Amino acid sequence: MMRLKMGMAGGGEGAFIGAIHRAAARLDGEIDLVCGAFSSDSEVSRRTGERLGLPPTRVYASWQDMLAREGMLPPGERMEFLSIVTPNDLHFPIAARALESGFHVLCDKPATKTLAEARLLAETVERTKGCYALTHTYLGYPMVVEARARIVAGAIGVVREVSVEYRQGWLSASAESSGNRQAQWRTDPQRAGAAGSVGDIGVHAFNLAEYMTGRQVTRLCADPGIAVPGRKLDDHAAAFLRFDNGAHGTLAASQICTGEENDLTIRIYGETGGVVWSHRDPNSLQLLSTAGTVQTLRAGNNVTQLHPAARNMCRTPAGHPEGYIEAFANLYRSFVADVRAHGSGGGLTSESPAPIAAAVRGMSFMDAMVRSGAADQRWIALES
Amino acid sequence: MMRLKMGMAGGGEGAFIGAIHRAAARLDGEIDLVCGAFSSDSEVSRRTGERLGLPPTRVYASWQDMLAREGMLPPGERMEFLSIVTPNDLHFPIAARALESGFHVLCDKPATKTLAEARLLAETVERTKGCYALTHTYLGYPMVVEARARIVAGAIGVVREVSVEYRQGWLSASAESSGNRQAQWRTDPQRAGAAGSVGDIGVHAFNLAEYMTGRQVTRLCADPGIAVPGRKLDDHAAAFLRFDNGAHGTLAASQICTGEENDLTIRIYGETGGVVWSHRDPNSLQLLSTAGTVQTLRAGNNVTQLHPAARNMCRTPAGHPEGYIEAFANLYRSFVADVRAHGSGGGLTSESPAPIAAAVRGMSFMDAMVRSGAADQRWIALES
Amino acid sequence: MMRLKMGMAGGGEGAFIGAIHRAAARLDGEIDLVCGAFSSDSEVSRRTGERLGLPPTRVYASWQDMLAREGMLPPGERMEFLSIVTPNDLHFPIAARALESGFHVLCDKPATKTLAEARLLAETVERTKGCYALTHTYLGYPMVVEARARIVAGAIGVVREVSVEYRQGWLSASAESSGNRQAQWRTDPQRAGAAGSVGDIGVHAFNLAEYMTGRQVTRLCADPGIAVPGRKLDDHAAAFLRFDNGAHGTLAASQICTGEENDLTIRIYGETGGVVWSHRDPNSLQLLSTAGTVQTLRAGNNVTQLHPAARNMCRTPAGHPEGYIEAFANLYRSFVADVRAHGSGGGLTSESPAPIAAAVRGMSFMDAMVRSGAADQRWIALES
Amino acid sequence: MMRLKMGMAGGGEGAFIGAIHRAAARLDGEIDLVCGAFSSDSEVSRRTGERLGLPPTRVYASWQDMLAREGMLPPGERMEFLSIVTPNDLHFPIAARALESGFHVLCDKPATKTLAEARLLAETVERTKGCYALTHTYLGYPMVVEARARIVAGAIGVVREVSVEYRQGWLSASAESSGNRQAQWRTDPQRAGAAGSVGDIGVHAFNLAEYMTGRQVTRLCADPGIAVPGRKLDDHAAAFLRFDNGAHGTLAASQICTGEENDLTIRIYGETGGVVWSHRDPNSLQLLSTAGTVQTLRAGNNVTQLHPAARNMCRTPAGHPEGYIEAFANLYRSFVADVRAHGSGGGLTSESPAPIAAAVRGMSFMDAMVRSGAADQRWIALES
Repeated sequence: MMRLKMGMAGGGEGAFIGAIHRAAARLDGEIDLVCGAFSSDSEVSRRTGERLGLPPTRVYASWQDMLAREGMLPPGERMEFLSIVTPNDLHFPIAARALESGFHVLCDKPATKTLAEARLLAETVERTKGCYALTHTYLGYPMVVEARARIVAGAIGVVREVSVEYRQGWLSASAESSGNRQAQWRTDPQRAGAAGSVGDIGVHAFNLAEYMTGRQVTRLCADPGIAVPGRKLDDHAAAFLRFDNGAHGTLAASQICTGEENDLTIRIYGETGGVVWSHRDPNSLQLLSTAGTVQTLRAGNNVTQLHPAARNMCRTPAGHPEGYIEAFANLYRSFVADVRAHGSGGGLTSESPAPIAAAVRGMSFMDAMVRSGAADQRWIALES
Repeated sequence: MMRLKMGMAGGGEGAFIGAIHRAAARLDGEIDLVCGAFSSDSEVSRRTGERLGLPPTRVYASWQDMLAREGMLPPGERMEFLSIVTPNDLHFPIAARALESGFHVLCDKPATKTLAEARLLAETVERTKGCYALTHTYLGYPMVVEARARIVAGAIGVVREVSVEYRQGWLSASAESSGNRQAQWRTDPQRAGAAGSVGDIGVHAFNLAEYMTGRQVTRLCADPGIAVPGRKLDDHAAAFLRFDNGAHGTLAASQICTGEENDLTIRIYGETGGVVWSHRDPNSLQLLSTAGTVQTLRAGNNVTQLHPAARNMCRTPAGHPEGYIEAFANLYRSFVADVRAHGSGGGLTSESPAPIAAAVRGMSFMDAMVRSGAADQRWIALES
Repeated sequence: MMRLKMGMAGGGEGAFIGAIHRAAARLDGEIDLVCGAFSSDSEVSRRTGERLGLPPTRVYASWQDMLAREGMLPPGERMEFLSIVTPNDLHFPIAARALESGFHVLCDKPATKTLAEARLLAETVERTKGCYALTHTYLGYPMVVEARARIVAGAIGVVREVSVEYRQGWLSASAESSGNRQAQWRTDPQRAGAAGSVGDIGVHAFNLAEYMTGRQVTRLCADPGIAVPGRKLDDHAAAFLRFDNGAHGTLAASQICTGEENDLTIRIYGETGGVVWSHRDPNSLQLLSTAGTVQTLRAGNNVTQLHPAARNMCRTPAGHPEGYIEAFANLYRSFVADVRAHGSGGGLTSESPAPIAAAVRGMSFMDAMVRSGAADQRWIALES
Repeated sequence: MMRLKMGMAGGGEGAFIGAIHRAAARLDGEIDLVCGAFSSDSEVSRRTGERLGLPPTRVYASWQDMLAREGMLPPGERMEFLSIVTPNDLHFPIAARALESGFHVLCDKPATKTLAEARLLAETVERTKGCYALTHTYLGYPMVVEARARIVAGAIGVVREVSVEYRQGWLSASAESSGNRQAQWRTDPQRAGAAGSVGDIGVHAFNLAEYMTGRQVTRLCADPGIAVPGRKLDDHAAAFLRFDNGAHGTLAASQICTGEENDLTIRIYGETGGVVWSHRDPNSLQLLSTAGTVQTLRAGNNVTQLHPAARNMCRTPAGHPEGYIEAFANLYRSFVADVRAHGSGGGLTSESPAPIAAAVRGMSFMDAMVRSGAADQRWIALES
């Protein structure tokens, strides 16, 4: 089977997530990186491309160049989809233009800088019929997919209470003042948008809560805060959530939890059971029922108790840890399936767990969080 | 050294916490149970006293009887302090009358049924100069005391963010409808007061947060809920907290987390470090600093790294688990120290980690939670 | 119900296990400590007794005195059973004399100093018809009893492989040279017997393996070692075990595992399942079956899945940790049942999980370990 | 930089480890798979190659063909190194021939079927000056490398006791009788060699113990066993180890631990500290010192406390789990460094953690295990 040809926007030297995307794209041997505009600094872009072994002609000084010139290459040679791993403010313009230019788009979260942009993007996807998906990392973990499958099938009864928290510590000091480029753009409203920790990690937590429960948040009440002096965007935030079936939820996202690494944990309780998943041990899923017994379900391609969708995401038998890169690779794999289905004329529905609809939901969440925070914790309905 | 003579109000057959109190009181051999009014049902009281080996003359049909008749016994014979383990509504009348009658009082939480009662009780304590303390269980764990000692000494810098959650699952079904007496009084506003889960376990979480940080909550915004149809009091609740130094906090208390046992976890993050303690593994304390290393400090009377106050609470070397009863026993031990100091003419200050001031704080918290919940999540200042 | 009257031999100031025994004996309110000979140093014995609130007439300068003079007290006053918590070399003479004098005996492990003594003691028990049991601590944990009940009932099929290890670090330096009395007698062949770590903790591991599997070790091959210069007894040891059904086992006992606390872990694998229990988390039991799922069963008096024998050992609902002292208290409780049954004329069979037969087994194990170690790892059959 | 060209022997449909090797080889984008002889069944080989997108001309019906015909291709086109992922019996003939043919060799463990073959292979490596390494998976984990670096630098003082165990459950029933190809060759002496579990996983445990301690095992005493009726090779085994500094060790390898997945754990204790690493949580390393504190060191490319060699093996910051495939990829990466150094004329020393010397050690271990088992647990010296 022919490999798909991928281009990349962003991900030059000093970037974090670009390298992860590239490793993930390589892992299953279904994708070739054929071109890139890796940085707004053309020299950085050139060096990155060289290090990646790309021919100089396919390394571009800007994403506009890339889209224009790849479009002129013959079909069997030009890139088929674009992976966008830039700071947030460029997600929308690049994605929209790429779709308009006939390329499929896989984009890092959040989808856009504003909710309005997200709606425009949804229209563009609709109109161009291009494939589009977000890499909401945590949906690439098999046990997250397993949890959703079980919950949606009624394994814990009606969902009543959801707690999701995502804690990091790397912004507990002013990393942006000491040259950390990752910190700089994430704390800059011009590049990150109106939300800080909420946009960087809170949106993951929100997305995970809606995905795993199979329910939608209808309104929220938010308490964002800024702990590090001089910062303009929230570096920690909490929220009360209300789901479409009346269930209560809480969400916490913080980047000032000194000493925490990347700890995302979700707990979902229903009438007859509970489910707990934590990124600290991603290959396990805790299933609670009555007091006194907890079942730990484990990832593995030999684990017959798993839903086929989850089991297919495992490359190894139980006991062989898979992690962050494999989760990303699973997202790439589902996007590849979308693109192949598109190519063969089928495929209105997406295999991707975070299609354009999830992109709009995420931006609605961020928008509501910011507005509730500004309104002294008033309840805000999520716009759809 | 003479053992102290203890009486007990409540704790008859079918009660949960009374037996724990009695075991805790026995553990260190410094207390003798000499009398009791174990139930409002005099036959239950009689049977309980008999089973406990008390002489029939010291088993009373009512707490009023007990206070009246013990007061008439000679000093070397009569009870010296009263342990109150009844449902919430009786805490205040019994405690106030006991103090007025010259007995010291150790009471299960919450202190009273209403904030107004708590203030009256504080006046009574002040006036009678009796010893009074609450058994806020979790303050009896050595690693909780260790955490407080370190935080107050500046080990994590200025406290910035606090997350405390207490999750149980035993009320996820309507246990009160199927004859569970523990569930019945806890879900009955007449006996429990205006708060359900908030009063039963939320107040523990609140107390722990103030104790461990050494800071006070100034206001809160609460989202209580009722999940089980027909219930009149909250069975789960969340809150945003604001501390006196501006730190943000979140609190969750839920008794509908199907499958959870008795899971209380607190995370406190400061400028330079973090501290995590969980009742699931109470003899460990996680100390976080920079990413990549976590120090686990362990309880044990041989652990020289511990603060003397914490180390003295350990009866065994590290690796010999101590638990819930030992935590209660530590609270009894500190109360015994209060009573002995009182007897020897000293002791205006209490050794107890939850003296009358904490009792009033707890009721202020419950009052604010209920009022914020009723006011659509308005911020409410805690009255002092 | 009348409390039983207990005397104690050993357990003076500076001792470790005596205080644990006393706390355990107090916990359930069924036992009164009425007398003691707490030390070979009569002044230490006196001070200890005074601190414990005993009348001076019941604090003896020697165990011989205690047995003689208690025997002369009237039945309703004198001690009914003796708890022996001295160093190993005194276990046999005291126990034998106490039984001969008409007292029941509860003794810390190991039963005696030599296998020959253990056989003599068994004869004495048989002849005097006194109650006798060992406090093999770990058999007092509910989940150990649960594991045995399940395994014996066939829950994991035929037992095939057993791994038990007990690791401590407190003897990794020469504590005996720096005044640690616990270390001194344990490393002294005159007091401890022919085995060091094997007698102090290895015998616990062995006892646990036979108890949980319900099977007997028929022979073993041992590799004891001395790591700390100048020591005369093993401070770490390993062994291959062969069970009476042919199952293989391994046993490790070490007191030089620097940094380890008191970590006893046992893994038992059968044809159709596995069971893992660790003292690090004693209220949990891991049940393994096929790959991919692990069931964690939890202790608690509300856990209906537990065997009644295990459930009755729990004082609290699931989620309220019970520990080392509660485990000891469970052993005291079963011994109290033995003594009461004896008093009422019944009771040839013991409720105690470690009766005299287990005492002889333990000494056979120690004897075989020492002989195999001396014979360059030759297989040695356990004598019965 | 040019990618290296890799060929593969073995790894056709139905194989387990071949796919892992290919994913690992792809992950970092430094290697292209250019050819393969994937199965002794030429049709299976053809289909596998087709699925992998290889041109039919580079998919061979036998490894002999592959070596012969690749050797005739021009240097810039032909494979540069061969990855061997066949059953054990083919490791030696393929590796030896490949080296003789001028190809570098990266081989799955164990190195050969017999110790004699391993010695011949060592001579071949020496003579041909080809690059050779084994993929001892667990040496690819950063925290294993960190542990070795610390231990070798003296962080725990003189090593005194080592415990290593590797437990699986997948052979607890006769999987070889129900069509499991992985089980079939591993339990067949013709294909696997004289050792079963010892050769499949015991050799990993042995290798890890020597690697992490930086010490050599000089002799051992082994207790292998067969639990499943009809099996000809050991399915579980234990051993006492003696290291070159006198330290004692124990090793367990079992494939009949029903319910266990792939649990490899090593504990190393020295005079002043201890180190514990487990494959269950591979990104953590426990550092023990005195009782009461445990330091958990975490993998991450941002963790400045790590040794540079370990830190460079991390692709992500702390808190982003890396796993089994990343560990393999690290082994590929170090082998790539060897090959590049060889190509540039340098490089007598290998970057690979398991070079030919480790291959011979592993076979010496297996040989000694089998001989000791056959000699009723006699001590056997490891031949070098």
